[in-house]
Amino acid sequence: MQDDIQVLCIGNAIVDIFGQVEDSFLVEHERIKGSMMLVDAETSARIYDSMPPATERSGGSAGNTAAGIASFGGRAAYIGKVHEDQLGAVFRHDIRAIGVRYDTRANTEGMPTATSMILVTPDAQRTMSTFLGACGELTVDDIDENLVASAEVTYFEGYLWDRDNQKDAILKAMDIAHKHGRQVALSLSDSFCVDRFRKEFVELVHDRVDILFANEDEIKSLYQVETFEEAAREFSPYVKLAALTRSEKGSVVLAKDVCIEVPALPAKVIDTTGAGDLYAAGFLYGYTNGHSLEDCARLGSLAASEVISHLGARPEVSLAKLKAEKLGL
Amino acid sequence: MQDDIQVLCIGNAIVDIFGQVEDSFLVEHERIKGSMMLVDAETSARIYDSMPPATERSGGSAGNTAAGIASFGGRAAYIGKVHEDQLGAVFRHDIRAIGVRYDTRANTEGMPTATSMILVTPDAQRTMSTFLGACGELTVDDIDENLVASAEVTYFEGYLWDRDNQKDAILKAMDIAHKHGRQVALSLSDSFCVDRFRKEFVELVHDRVDILFANEDEIKSLYQVETFEEAAREFSPYVKLAALTRSEKGSVVLAKDVCIEVPALPAKVIDTTGAGDLYAAGFLYGYTNGHSLEDCARLGSLAASEVISHLGARPEVSLAKLKAEKLGL
Repeated sequence: MQDDIQVLCIGNAIVDIFGQVEDSFLVEHERIKGSMMLVDAETSARIYDSMPPATERSGGSAGNTAAGIASFGGRAAYIGKVHEDQLGAVFRHDIRAIGVRYDTRANTEGMPTATSMILVTPDAQRTMSTFLGACGELTVDDIDENLVASAEVTYFEGYLWDRDNQKDAILKAMDIAHKHGRQVALSLSDSFCVDRFRKEFVELVHDRVDILFANEDEIKSLYQVETFEEAAREFSPYVKLAALTRSEKGSVVLAKDVCIEVPALPAKVIDTTGAGDLYAAGFLYGYTNGHSLEDCARLGSLAASEVISHLGARPEVSLAKLKAEKLGL
Repeated sequence: MQDDIQVLCIGNAIVDIFGQVEDSFLVEHERIKGSMMLVDAETSARIYDSMPPATERSGGSAGNTAAGIASFGGRAAYIGKVHEDQLGAVFRHDIRAIGVRYDTRANTEGMPTATSMILVTPDAQRTMSTFLGACGELTVDDIDENLVASAEVTYFEGYLWDRDNQKDAILKAMDIAHKHGRQVALSLSDSFCVDRFRKEFVELVHDRVDILFANEDEIKSLYQVETFEEAAREFSPYVKLAALTRSEKGSVVLAKDVCIEVPALPAKVIDTTGAGDLYAAGFLYGYTNGHSLEDCARLGSLAASEVISHLGARPEVSLAKLKAEKLGL
C-alpha cells in the first residue's frame, strides 16, 4: 500500500542541548569522551550549570533516524515518550515538521521531557549526558499494534534496554512485527550500552534481529574482541543483514555470503553527533526502496556526511535533493 | 569600583526559535520581511505548526547586547522577565553562562517564557513573530534601584514601549540612573516599533536619552523623512551621542560637533539576527572602557560582523579574543 510506513523508529525522545567545550571540561565533570552516560536530575543540573551558552535542537537516536528517512522522502513513523511541556512541544514539532508520523501520547504527569547535554570538543567528538525523564515512562501501551504491523521495518535503539518497561515495549513490538512477516532492525547505540546488556544483545542479534547496525567499538564490545575482523568473524555464522560503520574507514555490509565495503564520503567534520543515526536512515531508506545493498550503504554514508558537517544531529538540507545531486539516485 | 556594572541592559527575555524558510512562507503567513511583529498565543501556535524543524537559542534584543558586552570581557547585567519553565531555565542558563549578572525573579504564575519565531530567508534577512508571554509581566518592582544606580549606563529596548507596565519600569530606571549621574541608552529596536510610539520616542530621544542606537530605517521613521541625511539633520540639534547603523554601509557616530563614519567589516552573511544588538554591545563596551568614539564604532562593527556570520543572535566565539586579533585593541 502506498501509504504504509516504510520504517517505524522507536527510541528515547530527547531534546539535545549542544555546547562547545574544551577537553578539560570532560575531565572536570568525569565524562568519558565519545560515550553516552545516563545522569539523574541533580547531575544533569550540575553539568548544565557549568556548561557554556547552548543551542537546543531535537534529537534522540531513533528520532534522528526517522527524521533522516523522512528527509530522503521515505515514509517514517516514530514512537517515543515526551512530557506535555515546552521541550516536549519542541520535540513533537520538529519531528512532525520534517514529515515523520508521530502520535505517541505525551505524559501529563511524571517526569519532564528528556534532555541530553552534548559536549562537543574541538576534535568534533560528542560526549552525551542524558537525563531520561519522560522517555523512561514508555510502556507496552505505547506500542500501536496496527502501526507496527503495517511498517516494513521496525527499528529501535539499544539504549531502550536501560529500563525494563521500555524493553518490554520493544519485545512486544518485535513480536508483532515478526507475526506480520515484517523485519526488525536494531542499533547497538553505544559500546558502554553493549557492555551493560551484552548477554541479551548477543541473543537478540543472533536470534531475533533481521538488520543490525553497529559501529566498530560496539561490535567489538559485543564479542569482547580486539579487532574489527575478529568481531566480524564471530558474527558471521549468525548474520542475516548488518551494516557495520567504521567512521572515516567507511562501512561494511554483511549478509549471507556477502561482504561489501563502501568508503566514507569526505566531509569537514564539525560535530559527529548523529552520524550513526543518519547512516541507518540512509541505509533503511535505500533498503525499503529496493536499492542494492551497496547503494544502501552509499545512502547511509551520504546522510552521515551531511550531519557531521554541522552542529546538531538532524539533517539541515533535504537529503532527497542531496541524494540526487551527489549519488544520482 | 572594580566590580561595578558597566552596562545594565533591560529588555524582553526571549528564547528564539530559528527556522529557515523561503520567501513564500512569509507571504502565506502575512509577515513583513525584516520586521518584528507581536503575536498572540494562537497565532504563534499557527505559525509554529507550519514552521520547518527549528533550532532554539536564547535571544531578546537587550539580552543579546548584554551577552555581547560580557563576551568582550565587560561587566554587564540584565533585567528581563521569564517564567519558571523549561525555556525560562534555558534563557537564565545562557545569559549567566556567558558572564552576565541576571537576578530578575522568574514568575511562577501567569504566562510562559516568551518565544520569538525567527524566519530566516535565503537572503539572510530575519523576520520575527514574538509571543511576549512572561516578558509582558515586567513591572517597576523588577527594577533593582541599587543595580541601576551602580551601572555606568542603563540600556533598554524600544520594544518595551509595547506594554505600559514595562514602560513604567523603564521610566523608573531612567529616573534612578539620572538621579545618580549615570547615563541612559536606548535602541529604537524596529521601524514598526518607532511607528507605534513615534511621539513618545521623539520626546525620549530629544530630552532624556544620553546615547541613542538606531538603524537607518528607524531614524528615518522617527522623523518621517525619506533619507538618512534628512534624518541626521533633524536629529542634530538634539544629539548628545548617537550611533546610527547602515548595514553594509557601516555606521555613523554623532556627538556635539562630531560626525564619524566607520565602515562595516566584511562578513559572509548567514543570518542578520542580532546585528544591531551586537553593534550596541561593542559600542557600549568600548564607551565604558574609555575607547575613542571611532574605536567604539569599530568594536560595534566587529561584534555585528561576528553575529551575522552564523545562525543565532549571540556571539559564538569570544569577542575579547576577536577584538585583540582583528582590531589590536
